[in-house]
Amino acid sequence: MNSLNFETKPVSERYATPLNLKSGHVDLSHGSGGRAMAQLIDELFIKHFDNDLLRQHNDQALFNVPAGRLAISTDGHVISPLFFPGGDIGSLAVHGTLNDVAMSGAKPLYLAAGFILEEGLPLADLERIVISMAAAAKAAGTPIVTGDTKVVERGKGDGVFITTTGVGVVPEGVNISGDQARPGHAILVSGSIGDHGVAIMASRENLQFQTSIVSDSAALHGLVADLVATAPSALRCLRDPTRGGLATALNELAKQSCVGMVIDEAKILVKAEVKAACEILGLDPLYVANEGKLVCICDADAAEELLAAMRRHPLGRDAAIIGQVIEDPHGFVQMTTAFGGRRIVDWPVGEQLPRIC
Amino acid sequence: MNSLNFETKPVSERYATPLNLKSGHVDLSHGSGGRAMAQLIDELFIKHFDNDLLRQHNDQALFNVPAGRLAISTDGHVISPLFFPGGDIGSLAVHGTLNDVAMSGAKPLYLAAGFILEEGLPLADLERIVISMAAAAKAAGTPIVTGDTKVVERGKGDGVFITTTGVGVVPEGVNISGDQARPGHAILVSGSIGDHGVAIMASRENLQFQTSIVSDSAALHGLVADLVATAPSALRCLRDPTRGGLATALNELAKQSCVGMVIDEAKILVKAEVKAACEILGLDPLYVANEGKLVCICDADAAEELLAAMRRHPLGRDAAIIGQVIEDPHGFVQMTTAFGGRRIVDWPVGEQLPRIC
Repeated sequence: MNSLNFETKPVSERYATPLNLKSGHVDLSHGSGGRAMAQLIDELFIKHFDNDLLRQHNDQALFNVPAGRLAISTDGHVISPLFFPGGDIGSLAVHGTLNDVAMSGAKPLYLAAGFILEEGLPLADLERIVISMAAAAKAAGTPIVTGDTKVVERGKGDGVFITTTGVGVVPEGVNISGDQARPGHAILVSGSIGDHGVAIMASRENLQFQTSIVSDSAALHGLVADLVATAPSALRCLRDPTRGGLATALNELAKQSCVGMVIDEAKILVKAEVKAACEILGLDPLYVANEGKLVCICDADAAEELLAAMRRHPLGRDAAIIGQVIEDPHGFVQMTTAFGGRRIVDWPVGEQLPRIC
Repeated sequence: MNSLNFETKPVSERYATPLNLKSGHVDLSHGSGGRAMAQLIDELFIKHFDNDLLRQHNDQALFNVPAGRLAISTDGHVISPLFFPGGDIGSLAVHGTLNDVAMSGAKPLYLAAGFILEEGLPLADLERIVISMAAAAKAAGTPIVTGDTKVVERGKGDGVFITTTGVGVVPEGVNISGDQARPGHAILVSGSIGDHGVAIMASRENLQFQTSIVSDSAALHGLVADLVATAPSALRCLRDPTRGGLATALNELAKQSCVGMVIDEAKILVKAEVKAACEILGLDPLYVANEGKLVCICDADAAEELLAAMRRHPLGRDAAIIGQVIEDPHGFVQMTTAFGGRRIVDWPVGEQLPRIC
């Protein structure tokens, strides 16, 4: 009966002192399943993610769905640095996964989040990330309904890794997949390329550019919904060109669909400051990651209508038709260059930009 | 047109040499989104996880669901060591998440898997983990339909972390939640406790016991399905006592339901070798993690029938009724000890066993 002597408070008052969010740090007890973890979850995650499903404190979330097709996608986020111009690992972890769900044409419904924290991470940094993540999820209308927290020893992680999983519901009549590109289809891109990767590299290298380059990290499901509303049956492939950039996304789609592609360099928007930074950093913007852009492959006769729909949306203002799908058993992506030549835009072989997302 | 000179093979033959699974290592290019990553995904993940949804190479998986309630759960796995008696991080990542889904009474349908790999991880280790994961998913009937791979620099991770997410469908008439325990309800446990945590600690400390202790890591959804079939409306709470062990699971349920509990030490099975190891290691088996056990809280008049159902299942052979729910505004879990006394079984405060799952 000894325990009774030093523990007589009701459960609700069991945390003697609130989390020290100003100068405290993550320690191994925050991942142990005990009281320290319960406090971290209560005072940080549930407080900010704030929704009924999460408040139930179960190890899973339940929600109602209509009969039909669901989309699920998962994405680990290991970006370094954790905070960068235009976002942080929290907002990125929401946008990245939402976008992967949306690229099936689905309306994202819910998110799950798994955190792997490194011992010693300042609680203030974690709070800043959680607040940003909560804001991104709220803005997108996709609550974080379940989660998990693990802590690894100092030197066995890197601050925080966040793996998010999203589920969404695919509208009827939509059949978007990477293997649906056919010769004659048009290739659209929703805006300028390379912004995210260059923003990260610049902040990592501590480069000072005259104009600031900001990540394009954004949730694209609203733009996708507009495209679906405009011409659902004409949409063939959607993909967000993240790691490996536009070049990799196009090569993936060409490979999946067993087609070739010809794109026009002059139609691909690269902001002047991004172009300048790429030159300094020795990067090809075609291979640089984006986090708020999409590639759309569609029937040629719907291309102008879909382009107009993109341009009406704030995230698609600079959209363009950049090329077309051709027959090619080799699956090559070719680019007509500004000088009138043509070159193969190949898969990247090695590592251009590690930990960009 | 230069690229054409050194790249004229069709896409299907682009990997000049197969992955070196014998003596190769993970490097940063395996996370870059380029060809090395595509090869890792093709020759390792898709090869072993092998299912139609994954083979589509999309960034998300689509599947049909009936109208109704879905359950979703996510769990990061950071266990150290990666391989242990009775399993490895791969099988654990399947079982852990399946079990969290099943604890809602749901039938798990699909899994998503996010890998965070450390540069330098032997590909042979990764292959062994992927094969084990594939076998666990196949045995459970829950394919891994989508995934993600990230690579972090040497010293910024620890071999491999795996975050899995599961979705399942909840049968009608089932209403299981941690807040449904009421005074008078019976508390059942499906078997012996402490096996997983002690197996990990023993292999970590390189302890040699006369009898080998093996993790109880197992998928519990079959056992849950039997319980649901037996007395669906009498089932109130299900929880798998993982991190923090039985003591933490009971405290969580007591907190969620605003009730107290009284359990009987004599009814809680701890294997002799686990008990002995706990004494050497200074652990209390009540707080040691399990990965193949469940706590069930149910109406008192259905307890014997549910106990019999548990015992008919191979994973519930040693099930027992260990106590009952009582009224207690303090939310205490009390235990009648073998010596006839009573003590509070409190939340663990600090870290007993880091990285146990």
